[in-house]
Amino acid sequence: MTILPTNGLFLTFEGIDGSGKSTQCRLLAETLREQGHEVVLTREPGGSNGAEEIRRLVLEGDPDRWSAETELLLFTAARRDHLERTIEPALAAGKVVICDRFADSTRMYQGLSRGNLRAQVDKLHEMMIGREPDLTILIDMDPEIGLSRAKGRQTAEERFEDFGLELQLKMRAGFLALAQEFSPRFRVIDGTQSLDAVAADVLTQAQAALS
Amino acid sequence: MTILPTNGLFLTFEGIDGSGKSTQCRLLAETLREQGHEVVLTREPGGSNGAEEIRRLVLEGDPDRWSAETELLLFTAARRDHLERTIEPALAAGKVVICDRFADSTRMYQGLSRGNLRAQVDKLHEMMIGREPDLTILIDMDPEIGLSRAKGRQTAEERFEDFGLELQLKMRAGFLALAQEFSPRFRVIDGTQSLDAVAADVLTQAQAALS
Repeated sequence: MTILPTNGLFLTFEGIDGSGKSTQCRLLAETLREQGHEVVLTREPGGSNGAEEIRRLVLEGDPDRWSAETELLLFTAARRDHLERTIEPALAAGKVVICDRFADSTRMYQGLSRGNLRAQVDKLHEMMIGREPDLTILIDMDPEIGLSRAKGRQTAEERFEDFGLELQLKMRAGFLALAQEFSPRFRVIDGTQSLDAVAADVLTQAQAALS
Repeated sequence: MTILPTNGLFLTFEGIDGSGKSTQCRLLAETLREQGHEVVLTREPGGSNGAEEIRRLVLEGDPDRWSAETELLLFTAARRDHLERTIEPALAAGKVVICDRFADSTRMYQGLSRGNLRAQVDKLHEMMIGREPDLTILIDMDPEIGLSRAKGRQTAEERFEDFGLELQLKMRAGFLALAQEFSPRFRVIDGTQSLDAVAADVLTQAQAALS
């Protein structure tokens, strides 16, 4: 797929479990729509019919039925479908695409937590995906706060979130390191603020990117 | 996955549709078992529980629902699972693994026919698979003969075989070129001979590889 510059804006949210990503994605989409922007709100893994089928294949059933490597290939397949069917057409049409998790989550979860596969993650991304966000909001917080929030809404497929504090501390540090590595597109927002305060910070960053 | 030398023998069958691969796989497995070998007879896409699920995801439903690139990633995920769960454990235990299609089919179908993805196919194989067969039997024949045989047994999932003569001619030439490219492990057998004559040629090659 040839990745072209577009009139659209590709905005992703990242962060540890329970950091409030999904809520902030939804709030930002609502606000931008009220301001007259055409917004596509999507998420990963998933975000297109095919990718949602792959999501079910990976997240349902026995957690150990896929190795970290097979999981990485399945998530990359899902991302490719999501990119082709949802993200690229919307960006080409000048829309704002807000995506709850994207390649940075794979850099963390398959690259750092399940396997030590960061080199493979990067090569696969370069070869089969190519697209990077224009802006990535990292909602940062102490994992103890995130975990207590996440436990309230755990579903059968949320095994990826079924990790202990030690791993979440590692993930938080990993996301902050990623924000350094890709600093031009990352903005780190304090997720321990009130929901409204976080939403205001997110909106400020999104509007700067839109202007 | 570290690919180690093994006491086992990894034998694959390739060829255009209707060339008689599956029948010859089964006949060879029977004969080698009668001779006292431990044989694992398997196939791609599929060959492990996870890979069979991915097979269904790819081969069932609308033929155009996956791009060539997404399909390549899904097939590589299936092969990785098949390798980890079925092929490598059997080879490590000194068994003979007979596989109906393997990476050479991806080099042909995703690399040459659906997309022009040979470079990506090779990079993905090197990065995520690594294992090459010890011996590959290419059953070669005029596609007109293959097509007339294949039509007799078409099932819903065999959309990959639902191609015309022109493409099959291209595939035949592609497989023969692959046999040149990887000549140390390829043996080309004339598939227009009688079933027994093909089976005798296959057995000769397999026994040479086993000795």
